[in-house]
Amino acid sequence: MSSLKPVLVVAGIGAGGGTGGATARAFAKLGYSIALIARGTDSLKSLEKELQNSGAEATSFPIPSYEHSSIKSAFESIRARYSSTQYSIRAALYNAGHGVWKPFLDITPEDVKIITETNIEGSFAFAHEVLSDFKQNEIDTTNGKRGILIFTGATASIRGNTTTSAFAAGKFALRALSQSLAKEFGKQNIHVAHAIVDGGISTPLSRSRRNNSEWDQNEDIRLSPEAIASSYVYLASQERSAWTWELDLRPAHEKW
Amino acid sequence: MSSLKPVLVVAGIGAGGGTGGATARAFAKLGYSIALIARGTDSLKSLEKELQNSGAEATSFPIPSYEHSSIKSAFESIRARYSSTQYSIRAALYNAGHGVWKPFLDITPEDVKIITETNIEGSFAFAHEVLSDFKQNEIDTTNGKRGILIFTGATASIRGNTTTSAFAAGKFALRALSQSLAKEFGKQNIHVAHAIVDGGISTPLSRSRRNNSEWDQNEDIRLSPEAIASSYVYLASQERSAWTWELDLRPAHEKW
Amino acid sequence: MSSLKPVLVVAGIGAGGGTGGATARAFAKLGYSIALIARGTDSLKSLEKELQNSGAEATSFPIPSYEHSSIKSAFESIRARYSSTQYSIRAALYNAGHGVWKPFLDITPEDVKIITETNIEGSFAFAHEVLSDFKQNEIDTTNGKRGILIFTGATASIRGNTTTSAFAAGKFALRALSQSLAKEFGKQNIHVAHAIVDGGISTPLSRSRRNNSEWDQNEDIRLSPEAIASSYVYLASQERSAWTWELDLRPAHEKW
Amino acid sequence: MSSLKPVLVVAGIGAGGGTGGATARAFAKLGYSIALIARGTDSLKSLEKELQNSGAEATSFPIPSYEHSSIKSAFESIRARYSSTQYSIRAALYNAGHGVWKPFLDITPEDVKIITETNIEGSFAFAHEVLSDFKQNEIDTTNGKRGILIFTGATASIRGNTTTSAFAAGKFALRALSQSLAKEFGKQNIHVAHAIVDGGISTPLSRSRRNNSEWDQNEDIRLSPEAIASSYVYLASQERSAWTWELDLRPAHEKW
Repeated sequence: MSSLKPVLVVAGIGAGGGTGGATARAFAKLGYSIALIARGTDSLKSLEKELQNSGAEATSFPIPSYEHSSIKSAFESIRARYSSTQYSIRAALYNAGHGVWKPFLDITPEDVKIITETNIEGSFAFAHEVLSDFKQNEIDTTNGKRGILIFTGATASIRGNTTTSAFAAGKFALRALSQSLAKEFGKQNIHVAHAIVDGGISTPLSRSRRNNSEWDQNEDIRLSPEAIASSYVYLASQERSAWTWELDLRPAHEKW
Repeated sequence: MSSLKPVLVVAGIGAGGGTGGATARAFAKLGYSIALIARGTDSLKSLEKELQNSGAEATSFPIPSYEHSSIKSAFESIRARYSSTQYSIRAALYNAGHGVWKPFLDITPEDVKIITETNIEGSFAFAHEVLSDFKQNEIDTTNGKRGILIFTGATASIRGNTTTSAFAAGKFALRALSQSLAKEFGKQNIHVAHAIVDGGISTPLSRSRRNNSEWDQNEDIRLSPEAIASSYVYLASQERSAWTWELDLRPAHEKW
Repeated sequence: MSSLKPVLVVAGIGAGGGTGGATARAFAKLGYSIALIARGTDSLKSLEKELQNSGAEATSFPIPSYEHSSIKSAFESIRARYSSTQYSIRAALYNAGHGVWKPFLDITPEDVKIITETNIEGSFAFAHEVLSDFKQNEIDTTNGKRGILIFTGATASIRGNTTTSAFAAGKFALRALSQSLAKEFGKQNIHVAHAIVDGGISTPLSRSRRNNSEWDQNEDIRLSPEAIASSYVYLASQERSAWTWELDLRPAHEKW
Repeated sequence: MSSLKPVLVVAGIGAGGGTGGATARAFAKLGYSIALIARGTDSLKSLEKELQNSGAEATSFPIPSYEHSSIKSAFESIRARYSSTQYSIRAALYNAGHGVWKPFLDITPEDVKIITETNIEGSFAFAHEVLSDFKQNEIDTTNGKRGILIFTGATASIRGNTTTSAFAAGKFALRALSQSLAKEFGKQNIHVAHAIVDGGISTPLSRSRRNNSEWDQNEDIRLSPEAIASSYVYLASQERSAWTWELDLRPAHEKW
């Protein structure tokens, strides 16, 4: 790789205990500097501090929403912080999401707005910034990449269901974006991937919701953020002759 | 069927010579009254007049955009025009769309906005209005339906490609919505369907763009709006024991 | 259409009360002569007689198995019976199947053999004979077809599941064949289609198995062979500008 | 892991320079003993010797065909060689295949037979033997697996095309089997996976066919067997909370 220090940008870290946070930790261990984008300043700051305490370079970039302009200005701050003479953005994870599970007639225009904002407006803006930067990178000779852009999907990325009309609309759209980008940018040695997370993830939030320590302790029935992050690290390591666009991830005992 | 006169609501008629217009004509021949929703007053008025001249009851409801509030107020006007004591909305086609074919980095926030508005905001609002009405209908004893809601999809509904990141995002989302609704509302005897139009449609617009009379005259290589409309009429006629959610439509000689 | 009398060939009629039989009856009403291929002479003879009594021309061609040679010799008999100076095969339905629902480790080599024979060996032989004949036909000017070849699929055509490893292997293979043929022969104005029957069909066999008259009488929860046959008639009528390769069929209340 | 030495069984190694051989080498490096099943004694012996020379334990088990009885007796020999008191089969790759690319009407009954034998009869027999053994294994505490069974798929696993009716029928069937098994055996902590190899693989055979050193040297446009093998090693390492059933693999510049 070039002498520039690699940066991972993550958008969407929830309370810090989920997929976004685990991915940040995993890439930090590999020597990446981390740029964290999310709503919710508290979790951001706390994850930033945790990463720094572990010896990593990490900076948080809070945004008020996933609107185009917010994402754009977050990237301006990221570029100011991680100057292109010393750093290059080499990996990016779009992990933002918003869950709406409701009978269709209960879905409000606000639900539709937040779903489209997190899954479409934000992802298009994020991908635009990331890919513009990737195009400037040299090809990493170890894996043939200028950079990797990963999207976190869900069961609802490939199947609509009775209470998921809004959620699935957003996730289908995100998958379409990732597939289109994989086809368009592969030729430029930019790797775009999409993971279908098919099952419940053990996060602080899901644990408190379920209040079921048996569920949490049984690794056969729920995903761990760390295991998802491992798959993202793997994708980032894939050599140019065999890249994966899409993989599914589910616990061993999941019924599907 | 009940003694109420059936109404077809169509959203999206382009210049009137495409799928929306052909569907309006086909259902008018079956005795439906027609409510036309679209941007672009001229085409609307001209199609309205054409339908009326052919003996059909038809009314146009122009909208400034596919925003939620526009759709909602169009339906208020439709209900005022087609009073529920004499009419019932029995069929609806969401045919609105907006084509964006661009390399990803050329896509603007405005492109993303119009794609989400026509494919998501508008479709959610349209479906909300239609399904709320359908739920009030009696079941038609001939086919077991309270109503049928059809969505027009495209190749990009199932495959993202190099210049279709925005278009496919919208069409994937629309397909997710239609699948979710089919699953949620089937149990209430409401039929929701989705057609994948996989090929070029011969419309006044596409003919003028191509300026290739050979293409237009060769029915083996392009779709006719009338043939698409026939498939919609067929879907509306399907009996309750065997409903189709999704079918693909393409010319005999299409390469796919 | 030409002055030759159209013939429908159906392979697979079970006990005569299912999809194959209903399709034979439906095409007979449209004026087709019917050639019935199946194992099990009794049901064949009885359906043949029923069709003849209704005024149709129908002949049965019993086969010992779906092996290539059996299918080939059945077609020789069909061509002898329906001479090409007076008849032309215009439609064909491959409806043969064999259900195996077992935990994987209980599946025997014989199960695998019968699954591959009915779904692959037989379907390849059937398609070979039918397509060879279709190529000799003139194009029907009303719908642009030299002929239509329809395959009956199932839920297991698109989803493997815990007890369907053998059944799904066969049905996936049949779907692959139908898709390949649709792409290869569309250019020659031969229409190939595939129906995904997603739910229980009310047949004499399924009724006796379930012994549940409520299930049978509730059209919202099970498919009728006649409704499936109607969709096949529809496919046969589709004009060349908009042909369907695949549609799904399920009862209004089906959970999917 | 238990004190038993892990064994990888590979079926299908072609000339030894492809995916099967690379996977054997990769797992041998991880300490697995290797059992090689294939037709063609020469390549088998030569790969066996190569692995042994590199310090690995490897044995070849030539078979005359992928018929059920051949597979069954190969496994009897494997179990005799790798006694269950010292070894346990922990990984298995079904990599057998046979390419048929022909216009449909040129496909012979023999083509159909070899396709079904390699993709269905052989895979069912192989999976039966492997899964029966896996069920006896203890769960590996590092990844939650009793064993992993991987299937090599192709573009034709998910798309039929004009000259792939036979090839795709086989590959679709294999995919159905793998999906069914993943669902059935996940609950027993047995990991079943399927890789869609979407592009040309650089093997001795493909290199001699193409005779195009530029193609071979450009890692952006063809897959290397080693890169595919790396993905299989990765799948074998996935922890129980996030297993992948299916991933696609293609060169960075592949058009798809």
